[in-house]
Amino acid sequence: MQMFPAVALLVVGSEVTKGYVQDAHVSFFAEALQAEGMELGEARILPDHEEEVKKAILDLHQDFFIIMTGGLGPTEDDKTVDIISDLLSVEPTLHPPAERRIRAVFRKKDKNFLKRALRQGRIPSGVEVIENKIGLAPGFFAPSLALVALPGFPLEVKPMWETVRDILQKHVLQKPKPIILPIWGIGESDLFSQLEIPEEVEVGVHALPYGCRLFVQSNHSDVLRSFTEQIQEKFSACIMENPEQSIFEILKSKKETLAFAESCTGGLAGKIFTDMPGSSEVFLGSLVCYHNSVKKNVLNVKESTLIKYGAVSQQTALEMAEGARKNTGATYAISWTGIAGPTGGSLEKPVGTLFCAVAKSGETRVAKFLFPLGRKRFRLVAVYAGYLGLLSMLKGHSCSRSAVSRFVAIGEKNHEV
Amino acid sequence: MQMFPAVALLVVGSEVTKGYVQDAHVSFFAEALQAEGMELGEARILPDHEEEVKKAILDLHQDFFIIMTGGLGPTEDDKTVDIISDLLSVEPTLHPPAERRIRAVFRKKDKNFLKRALRQGRIPSGVEVIENKIGLAPGFFAPSLALVALPGFPLEVKPMWETVRDILQKHVLQKPKPIILPIWGIGESDLFSQLEIPEEVEVGVHALPYGCRLFVQSNHSDVLRSFTEQIQEKFSACIMENPEQSIFEILKSKKETLAFAESCTGGLAGKIFTDMPGSSEVFLGSLVCYHNSVKKNVLNVKESTLIKYGAVSQQTALEMAEGARKNTGATYAISWTGIAGPTGGSLEKPVGTLFCAVAKSGETRVAKFLFPLGRKRFRLVAVYAGYLGLLSMLKGHSCSRSAVSRFVAIGEKNHEV
Repeated sequence: MQMFPAVALLVVGSEVTKGYVQDAHVSFFAEALQAEGMELGEARILPDHEEEVKKAILDLHQDFFIIMTGGLGPTEDDKTVDIISDLLSVEPTLHPPAERRIRAVFRKKDKNFLKRALRQGRIPSGVEVIENKIGLAPGFFAPSLALVALPGFPLEVKPMWETVRDILQKHVLQKPKPIILPIWGIGESDLFSQLEIPEEVEVGVHALPYGCRLFVQSNHSDVLRSFTEQIQEKFSACIMENPEQSIFEILKSKKETLAFAESCTGGLAGKIFTDMPGSSEVFLGSLVCYHNSVKKNVLNVKESTLIKYGAVSQQTALEMAEGARKNTGATYAISWTGIAGPTGGSLEKPVGTLFCAVAKSGETRVAKFLFPLGRKRFRLVAVYAGYLGLLSMLKGHSCSRSAVSRFVAIGEKNHEV
Repeated sequence: MQMFPAVALLVVGSEVTKGYVQDAHVSFFAEALQAEGMELGEARILPDHEEEVKKAILDLHQDFFIIMTGGLGPTEDDKTVDIISDLLSVEPTLHPPAERRIRAVFRKKDKNFLKRALRQGRIPSGVEVIENKIGLAPGFFAPSLALVALPGFPLEVKPMWETVRDILQKHVLQKPKPIILPIWGIGESDLFSQLEIPEEVEVGVHALPYGCRLFVQSNHSDVLRSFTEQIQEKFSACIMENPEQSIFEILKSKKETLAFAESCTGGLAGKIFTDMPGSSEVFLGSLVCYHNSVKKNVLNVKESTLIKYGAVSQQTALEMAEGARKNTGATYAISWTGIAGPTGGSLEKPVGTLFCAVAKSGETRVAKFLFPLGRKRFRLVAVYAGYLGLLSMLKGHSCSRSAVSRFVAIGEKNHEV
């Protein structure tokens, strides 16, 4: 039996190439294949054009096992069954169980309607059917084309994955699965300058909102183990699935609470934290104080501080964190004040400047960052810099060159970083 | 000059084919091209494999103008500049402005670090540079290949679109542009039940965060005009590019201000509003009061209200909006309280229940919604429902079956909707 080195995904649907619907198949299959140690060698998205689709199948068939989605519906431009039948030199035929389901669903409709609906019950003669438990169009496997055809709706495809996976395992080569290390608060360049990657190890990087997710793979299991242990030791304070989840779990276990004081992040810190279902167990609220008057009235930042140091300063950041903690009664508070841009920068405090403070009873810490990344990324990175500052306070250990190490404890009388 | 019938998108990045990152380029370019009357003829996603990418470019070049993303970064597997240089038979060269930016950003780093970082300042000799205002790697246009190369980060690509569009307009055939009508605050089924679409008109739908963006196209310009006029008249209160921009412009022109009181939205309302640069001109802040104690202490919601009606009630929503307005001094306030789920629902107030209030001096309005859409979509739809409520107060007119029409004015003594 021929074993293919990789899989190609062929997504057919003009609704995707016209931008009406966002494709969801590529990320689903990329992740599912990766988890099985199989490679997605290519993904191709085409409109419902019969000839182009046929050409693409013949092209991809040379190198890949093909997973194809779309074109199985009831309308005239759904041509997958016709295309595959033609390539196999067979006739389309009605699949009896599908026909029965369609007749049952549309039994009250007129003849023409039923005739059109029955189109989606067709399969090329001789293929192996893959049952569609949600929609009406069956999927199928054509062994001689090394091709699986599935419907276009992701909701219908997901329950069919296990059957598809079993087919793939007999026809596609599988590698060892990768080890995944999410390292937060450190940029790609800074991280790699601290890594010595053995030749036998392959490292892939995915950017986190602030940090890198490493995918480490090797055929030498001993080299792989010692390399990942070295990383885990060096960056232990920074390795976690995500910082908000880590904060949530620590505070929940200690029955402690959290509040935010946001300026430049505008609510994003609260938004990300409350994306987690159940976050209300530890999260009391976030006082988003964009205007100085609100910083004074709601967070009790002193007018003299705002005048002397400005709204974007470590002093204001510290008073914001303290104010949020006191006014909400939270155990911990994080504050953010900075210049997201595009305007508002100065020579001394350019766009991208961020002051971030964390406070608990009797201790405050503050850090200054410069993230000249544009408004949107600045705000996202800023949020995570603050989360990591709190984690360094909660966990009491740190990590070279990462945001976790940047927060400096501040005494009552000494506000210089 | 050769005019191509369509565009092909070539997304290069193993992070996508391995499932580490979800592709965002296909939907962005599909929609952007559609809006310009250009066709996306194919999208292809490939891993960072030099030979496969080269083969794909030569293959796509036969039929399409190519937009390529990815492979412009600093690492060894970023090969786009090498591939294109090779296809053009030129040498890669450092682009001086990019070199200056990279040296400025990394001036404190060592030689090896800088050398690696400088990789992303390279371009193939002789191409037209497309400036990257966010990241460090410039994009470029290679006329003889009819190919534009852009970075892999969608955030960096979006600001480059206008330049790319101007290039495409000289090289790709364009059909009449569709008329785009963003209709907010109304679902697809409700919208289509109110539309009579003439046979000569083709209507595509793209989902907005809360509403539908209609793409209306026809070769019969008179039919097209009368159909779009009919829609514009019927839905005038709901048609706008986005509600936050409309609010911002109205308040800015009147020199009035805005504050939020958020519970279930957790900061998302503030985040979306402050995504707009310059929003500080009208936006004072958002008091995100997740916990009841904070609703009392920071927003002055009465304890008796929370006990009698619950945190998720029109009475609490009204007091939240009034409290936010008074405590920040804003002209207007919007409040959100609801059950995002997955837990916390009851028979009377199921998951998806939302109360939203808008307040100005002397007038408050409130609306109840049910959006059983899952936590993530619930929160997004909720934010826009509130924005639309404020717009109905600001503009003083309404729109059948849309969120804009759902807000009911409340007298001081009568808190029943």
